[in-house]
Amino acid sequence: MTILKRTVIYVSDGTGITAETLGHGLLSQFEGIEFKPLRYPFLDSEDKARECVARINEVKQSEGVHPIVIMTQTNAEFSSILHQADAFFIDLFDTFIVPLEKELGSRYSRAVGRSHGQANPEYNSRIAAMNFALAHDDGVSDADLKSADIILVGVSRSGKTPTSLYLSLQFSLRAANYPLIPEDFERGHLPSRLQPFRGKLYGLTIDPEQLQRIRFERRPNSKYASLDNCRYEVAAAEKMMKREGIKWFDTTSRSIEELAVQLMQELNPGH
Amino acid sequence: MTILKRTVIYVSDGTGITAETLGHGLLSQFEGIEFKPLRYPFLDSEDKARECVARINEVKQSEGVHPIVIMTQTNAEFSSILHQADAFFIDLFDTFIVPLEKELGSRYSRAVGRSHGQANPEYNSRIAAMNFALAHDDGVSDADLKSADIILVGVSRSGKTPTSLYLSLQFSLRAANYPLIPEDFERGHLPSRLQPFRGKLYGLTIDPEQLQRIRFERRPNSKYASLDNCRYEVAAAEKMMKREGIKWFDTTSRSIEELAVQLMQELNPGH
Repeated sequence: MTILKRTVIYVSDGTGITAETLGHGLLSQFEGIEFKPLRYPFLDSEDKARECVARINEVKQSEGVHPIVIMTQTNAEFSSILHQADAFFIDLFDTFIVPLEKELGSRYSRAVGRSHGQANPEYNSRIAAMNFALAHDDGVSDADLKSADIILVGVSRSGKTPTSLYLSLQFSLRAANYPLIPEDFERGHLPSRLQPFRGKLYGLTIDPEQLQRIRFERRPNSKYASLDNCRYEVAAAEKMMKREGIKWFDTTSRSIEELAVQLMQELNPGH
Repeated sequence: MTILKRTVIYVSDGTGITAETLGHGLLSQFEGIEFKPLRYPFLDSEDKARECVARINEVKQSEGVHPIVIMTQTNAEFSSILHQADAFFIDLFDTFIVPLEKELGSRYSRAVGRSHGQANPEYNSRIAAMNFALAHDDGVSDADLKSADIILVGVSRSGKTPTSLYLSLQFSLRAANYPLIPEDFERGHLPSRLQPFRGKLYGLTIDPEQLQRIRFERRPNSKYASLDNCRYEVAAAEKMMKREGIKWFDTTSRSIEELAVQLMQELNPGH
């Protein structure tokens, strides 16, 4: 199959992250097309708007197809300059914000720092949760386990660290990790420090062959990375989780985003 | 000012993360309104669609105003069931995807794992970048500095770790950190290991009083957290960065998202 290439241009008077995240979500579902991103964040003057239009038109000229422009521009004057470009527009402001203002009876305003800024309690709790996840990666004190919202268990390299970081950044969850190691399997019971926290324990597991590949990159030719050992650890961890009634998820073909959302659903079954 | 409360409901046949990120970006700019989120991810059956409609209508009944429903639902049948609910809809699929299909001459399909899944090279490079950032937090080998896309320097707790993690997760950048410590200031020159990498060095600085508060939470009543010491370290770090020609950013009133986008602009000035 030939891969077509298209340019996607993110334009914003803010960071452009809302536009870019939407773009990733929408465009990645079109098979056979590779999207090349250009970014115009902090577009806050007429000059910058005209420069951006010139660039969009250049891309159109050289590629012969419309660039996809995804924009969140709150300034009406700059927005109307931008719309003169020869492109396919996804304009989040015009499309959604004007009707939202009517529905909410309130004005949308691009106040610096309101969405992500440090005066925002939601922002601060996300950063606190990320610091928690970073500080409590791979083994933690009992006090820390107690204050965690969720504790992920699983063998080394089963995906605990990226999943807990994502849970913290996206959902402000205080996520701790606890690695299951061969000594835990020999003892034949859940590490005693985890016993009081069954209600917030979730397991991660992974296909032993994929685990072997991941571990091999870190420590080639070690017992740690051998397929036999990976098979043993995964089987022993799954057996323990089953016996202890810990719900677990297979990370082999799930992204951290999917895992994080599924774990959120488990924690808040009534949403 | 009275804070109004509105319920926002994220509905998706996928994770709902695209919808939720858009929601955060849009709704956080309406001052004086607090939005309470409900989430219906993985909505993939008629039953779930009807259950969701019932819940939306309940919210409308009890609150007396329309819930804001933000949805990415690719199944036309479930979508039309959902639209029977009494709500204000932001429907990303109907609004953007149908016209995009026309423009791109390609069909949008909700293939599991395409956007975020592990078979996706873009996903894999994001995870690799995050692992790099985690492994290279606070001091790294020369080989690692060499392979980094960007190296952030600054005093302890100036924001290097969250910024580099965000750069990795959002932009797949291999971001390393290098802390500037009092010994570096006494020596009076940039740590020699950093010398070869001036082209990708960026500094972070922070208001000394805010630094004092952050450090105090970690180590109360230490010299490390004293205001005098914070003032000294920040001034010495800024002096060094100025002398060495390292461009720096103040993290005091910038979010990690804003910082990350500004650093991306520095790295790719021509986008």
